[in-house]
Amino acid sequence: MSAFLPIAITLGDPAGIGPEIIAKAFRDAPEALRGCFVAGDVATLRRAAALVRGSGGVSLPVAEIGAARAAQDMPPRCVPVLQVVPRAAPVPLGRVSGAAGRIAGDCVVWAARAALRGEIGAMVTAPLHKEALAAVGEPYARFPGHTELLQAEAAAHLGRPVDQVPVRMMLANDELRTVLVSIHVPLRQAIESVTAGNILQTLRIVHESVGAALQIAPRIGVAGLNPHAGEGGLFGREEIEAIAPAIAQARAEGIDARGPFAPDTVFMRARSTPQRAGEFDVVVAMYHDQGLIPVKYLGVEQGVNVTLGLPFVRTSPDHGTAFDIAGTGRADAASLLAAVRMARQLAR
Amino acid sequence: MSAFLPIAITLGDPAGIGPEIIAKAFRDAPEALRGCFVAGDVATLRRAAALVRGSGGVSLPVAEIGAARAAQDMPPRCVPVLQVVPRAAPVPLGRVSGAAGRIAGDCVVWAARAALRGEIGAMVTAPLHKEALAAVGEPYARFPGHTELLQAEAAAHLGRPVDQVPVRMMLANDELRTVLVSIHVPLRQAIESVTAGNILQTLRIVHESVGAALQIAPRIGVAGLNPHAGEGGLFGREEIEAIAPAIAQARAEGIDARGPFAPDTVFMRARSTPQRAGEFDVVVAMYHDQGLIPVKYLGVEQGVNVTLGLPFVRTSPDHGTAFDIAGTGRADAASLLAAVRMARQLAR
Repeated sequence: MSAFLPIAITLGDPAGIGPEIIAKAFRDAPEALRGCFVAGDVATLRRAAALVRGSGGVSLPVAEIGAARAAQDMPPRCVPVLQVVPRAAPVPLGRVSGAAGRIAGDCVVWAARAALRGEIGAMVTAPLHKEALAAVGEPYARFPGHTELLQAEAAAHLGRPVDQVPVRMMLANDELRTVLVSIHVPLRQAIESVTAGNILQTLRIVHESVGAALQIAPRIGVAGLNPHAGEGGLFGREEIEAIAPAIAQARAEGIDARGPFAPDTVFMRARSTPQRAGEFDVVVAMYHDQGLIPVKYLGVEQGVNVTLGLPFVRTSPDHGTAFDIAGTGRADAASLLAAVRMARQLAR
Repeated sequence: MSAFLPIAITLGDPAGIGPEIIAKAFRDAPEALRGCFVAGDVATLRRAAALVRGSGGVSLPVAEIGAARAAQDMPPRCVPVLQVVPRAAPVPLGRVSGAAGRIAGDCVVWAARAALRGEIGAMVTAPLHKEALAAVGEPYARFPGHTELLQAEAAAHLGRPVDQVPVRMMLANDELRTVLVSIHVPLRQAIESVTAGNILQTLRIVHESVGAALQIAPRIGVAGLNPHAGEGGLFGREEIEAIAPAIAQARAEGIDARGPFAPDTVFMRARSTPQRAGEFDVVVAMYHDQGLIPVKYLGVEQGVNVTLGLPFVRTSPDHGTAFDIAGTGRADAASLLAAVRMARQLAR
């Protein structure tokens, strides 16, 4: 028996590119996918495998498994699928529907609960479509995406209110890791989230989660909010009133946090290339685009999204459902593969 | 006589790295510097040339010239300097002083007026130090930097109020050009500047200025303000209420503006590499860091700052006075050189 728990890859919205990038990943990187299985729907994966087999010319059997642990014994280039939703004809590709949203949501909930039960070592989530989730109504309409849904599952499991399971999104590629203080809110509201409490909470989560992954106390660079990090209060006072005090408190707790630094250069300074090691292991960004612009600038293919702060490991590719190309076989599995590799690195 | 007007390079703060990167540029790229001269102080340039000559081992004479047009006749690796400030002993390196601020400001004012008189084809400005300007008192203390000072000079020349000489900052490197709707203001205030009027004004300036440089109507990608460009109003309404109407009006005027696009991917889409042409010639960014993070991410050495909207051409390197290394000979002239090349491309 393997020393590692299996890793679940959730189906994603079955009308999007999720199933086909999963099939491609099993086709193209069998070693990386060892011990992984799909928490999803066998018929949908068979359709995706047929599409991907057609374009790649290799055999790609889809095997229904009866339990997560069976994923460990699969031969390479065989796609193990655990049927976690009711069987039905596959949904049409490229269309928003509540039926697709429900399937996508159910797969995520199944994986979250399996992780909380300790049956899987990590979950990798293929993309959801927000409008499809909204079209479901209860219980999914109120979740803008994976993060909030997983947070709710974790909170229910732990018997705590959701706000006592604080999570943060980390985006990472080969060069840069960034963790966001806030995500899918208007920029005005993101500014209101730049409080000493939120930043300190972020620093603690980063220190613990990234530290566990890297096996060292991470060097955390903290971005300012304003141009030039406020230039001593000239262009805004959040650095003085919220960010610097949070950093000081974090340092008093033994967290290696530094800053606040000018936002327009801190990411460049943290960037790690084969020629030059970065100054920081991770940058805390004050809002969504501050962190995502540099992570995505060199191309989104290799980006990985990691949810920090949950009581289980969750990674995902850094792109959406791409309904416009679903079913064409053109979708690129690189980001999903990077997410699988990251999940394995973080899995306990 | 040359068909081109000479290009003035202003001294910058004489206590910073400006003089030495100017000397380095003349030393290392004599062809690129043909027809350029320093609007500055001969003694300060002699000190810088001695420093740079020492480290490079080449002859680097500094020649005082009596008028801008004499720059055209200089041999390569000779630094022509027009003495535009009162002669005095060079200021100490690496220290903020009103004396240094006054010299720096006077050189800029001289160059602006020479450009407005039609004596020079463009100006390239070495870096100022804001605190040194502030230490001068009148007339420089009220200008946070070059842009505002140049705008005031242009307004006085044109006999208009300053707000009727709207300017915008463009940052450019080999891969990406971005123009900012607002610059050195707190992020809260930058959001208030995201109005249809300001964006339309930006689009008109970009269309005219970048169009003149590229000799084609530029393809302008417009970033949103909020994550995912607001996702249809879900994360903010500025895209719907200000940005989209400005784009529609600009398009009605024949400007090739498109968007608003998700801020986290529009810069990646515009990025132009030898392998892949970008989708846009220039991206309009809604605030300082949105545009500067991607321009600087790959390293600041090659960044150029261009002020669009002035009645003359002005470029500058994309870095500061670096007082900490002034006089060590370590400062890199690459960004200044890129600014000279860009000035020549834009010069009329």
